Amino acid sequence: MTTTASELRTKGAAARDAARALARVSAEVRNGAIRNIASHLLERKAEVLAANRKDMEAGRRAGLSEALLDRLLLTHERLEGIAADVRQVATLPDPLGEVSDMRTLPNGLQLGRKRVPLGVIAAIYESRPNVTVDIASLCLKSGNACILRGGKEAIHSNTALAAVVRDAVAAADAPDNAVQLIESTDRALVGEMLKMRELIDLVVPRGSAELIRFVAENARMPVLVGGTGVCHTYVDRAADIDMGARVAYNAKCRRYSICNALDTLLVHADIAETFLPAIARAWAEAGVEMRCDQRSLGILEASDVAGLSLKPTQVDDFGKEFLAPIASVRVVDSLDEALDHIYEHSTGHSDAIITEDYSAAMRFLDEVDTAVVYVNASTQFTDGAQFGLGAEIIDSTQKTIARGPVALREITTYKWIVLGSGQTRP
Amino acid sequence: MTTTASELRTKGAAARDAARALARVSAEVRNGAIRNIASHLLERKAEVLAANRKDMEAGRRAGLSEALLDRLLLTHERLEGIAADVRQVATLPDPLGEVSDMRTLPNGLQLGRKRVPLGVIAAIYESRPNVTVDIASLCLKSGNACILRGGKEAIHSNTALAAVVRDAVAAADAPDNAVQLIESTDRALVGEMLKMRELIDLVVPRGSAELIRFVAENARMPVLVGGTGVCHTYVDRAADIDMGARVAYNAKCRRYSICNALDTLLVHADIAETFLPAIARAWAEAGVEMRCDQRSLGILEASDVAGLSLKPTQVDDFGKEFLAPIASVRVVDSLDEALDHIYEHSTGHSDAIITEDYSAAMRFLDEVDTAVVYVNASTQFTDGAQFGLGAEIIDSTQKTIARGPVALREITTYKWIVLGSGQTRP
Repeated sequence: MTTTASELRTKGAAARDAARALARVSAEVRNGAIRNIASHLLERKAEVLAANRKDMEAGRRAGLSEALLDRLLLTHERLEGIAADVRQVATLPDPLGEVSDMRTLPNGLQLGRKRVPLGVIAAIYESRPNVTVDIASLCLKSGNACILRGGKEAIHSNTALAAVVRDAVAAADAPDNAVQLIESTDRALVGEMLKMRELIDLVVPRGSAELIRFVAENARMPVLVGGTGVCHTYVDRAADIDMGARVAYNAKCRRYSICNALDTLLVHADIAETFLPAIARAWAEAGVEMRCDQRSLGILEASDVAGLSLKPTQVDDFGKEFLAPIASVRVVDSLDEALDHIYEHSTGHSDAIITEDYSAAMRFLDEVDTAVVYVNASTQFTDGAQFGLGAEIIDSTQKTIARGPVALREITTYKWIVLGSGQTRP
Repeated sequence: MTTTASELRTKGAAARDAARALARVSAEVRNGAIRNIASHLLERKAEVLAANRKDMEAGRRAGLSEALLDRLLLTHERLEGIAADVRQVATLPDPLGEVSDMRTLPNGLQLGRKRVPLGVIAAIYESRPNVTVDIASLCLKSGNACILRGGKEAIHSNTALAAVVRDAVAAADAPDNAVQLIESTDRALVGEMLKMRELIDLVVPRGSAELIRFVAENARMPVLVGGTGVCHTYVDRAADIDMGARVAYNAKCRRYSICNALDTLLVHADIAETFLPAIARAWAEAGVEMRCDQRSLGILEASDVAGLSLKPTQVDDFGKEFLAPIASVRVVDSLDEALDHIYEHSTGHSDAIITEDYSAAMRFLDEVDTAVVYVNASTQFTDGAQFGLGAEIIDSTQKTIARGPVALREITTYKWIVLGSGQTRP
């Protein structure tokens, strides 16, 4: 169960070689490997659940919270859900092989960009064991090898799942070395991994803000960072009040603990006295705490809405990701003030305007520099499946590589292919 | 002339704010700013040349080589060439604003990806002062602010050029803070810059392999790495011998000191006795030294080609970028052996096959994982202008962000725009 730095390099090199082999494998074989994962998972349920019980017992002994234990837990039903998700990946269109921009130059050279796998993707993640299967399936689908480093709490589950996955891949005559699990939970090894620039093409951290920052600051290879969303909904003076309340309610309350949930509500002063009581009534029923600037607090305290949970904003309530039934609220005097607020506080994940004013909508779309910019819709739509992209790996909040939902295409790259007939450059 | 870390952050923040303003500026104004740079450069020639003379004098005192002094030198003619290149950038198509993948989801949401600037690009480069003007123009064209950190030897030239550029930008009513020059040549400041993850979206190092490695390993933000090319040309058993010799000659001899020049020639054993003397004759006339494996050495020593410069290969001659009239040579027994050699030694810049065999060409295109893969053409074509992309910033050898020639489009990104009518997520 211990992995040394040199064993880590051996696994990295095995993944690199397997990536070369996998890039030559047809979509048919890749999809067969993925379907095998689903069927083997169900056939070997007992083995996986036994391993998961060890993690659960260790987690209880270690005093993990009920929420963490629930994230760790695998059941018959959950394994069936995971298998169904995996089978779904096999049905998605092949992200590889597309040739774009193909053209003929005046000298007769024909050239274009062909979509190919990235190579080796390392994923560093925390407790949920289903990530092991998800990432492996998505990487296989996109022709990439993967190096998986899950959390300490899930080590037995991850080891069992990775064994199932590798056997399933081998049974499809695809290279099982394309899936590598780091079985050591020694944190120092993560630092070692992040130095392996010649073996890893992309690192994807999934987990706490601390983990993500550590990876972003220490990786020597490209990183895909996401999952931190401080999301704004701005209700413009020209908003349809009912629509605004419905959308803001959904953006906050559909689910609280996800990165595309509303954190801050900005309301134009001209409609604040009508809109704030409307949204406050809906949020009050859902038990949402409102952390209000002075003006919104004044309006709500003077209103007749029952059951409000109001607090004045504290330092940092703007620009904070709550992941809870809490929203910060501010009244602004203009679209410009809303744009300035968003520029200052948004993490560039998802921001929305509610308005019937065409020019305000256009300015918001143009000037808000966020991965997903919405007019008159809930920010909770930010999701690969909702966008019709199929499976999602993370929601990127960086500007390079991919923005917003990262699906299969976003973990591929292209190469230029040039077809000549003896051309030399003058 | 000294910049402290806090002044560096101030410049970074100014660039970040200017990027926001620049993203709202029309292509007309951006192109006007670029044309102004060209005209102001010519109007203020005397001032720029005087600054350049200071660098040249300091360079001579410091004992810089003639080659380095030549790279540093600005003349009337060179400034006119730089101005002409800048005017050319103004004529290129606008890389911004294109909307792709626009579609309507079943729930009526309309969504697509809109091409937008990255934000702030930092360039870290060495002696050539024209890079200051090139990068500034390409960043303005693509709506990006830039932070420029040139080499110590060119500090007076760069300071004068940056002043001209900023004035030219301001004269076009565009934000002159979008171009920031770091006037300190303190190396420690580069380390500080590479920590400014919240202010810089992308770092582009241009210069020595040492500089590039330092940046890649220390930057906390995304890096675009390129310019190191160990390039192979494989002459297959089914090659047209004359074409192969012409193409390999061009790939090596058109220019020696650029990254797309041939470093290693691989020759199939079946045609080695015909092909090797043919290319050796051409290379001998050009004074190219051939570092040969045992089999190619035997064939060439037994040949009647005059004036050969032959050496046995030393350790590292395969996988070495020569940037000089030197090529390493190896005889292989099969396409597979050539593919293995390239897998092991290529830096993923540009690799070519010479063959009339359709299946060999297809396998090479599919299996060689290099930014630009050629059939029957010189690797020296790898270049943004040759590919019809307009100006080029670097040739990327990484797999993410961009591969091969990095032109204007490659230094932009996209955001998702979502047009709704009150949709909420179930």
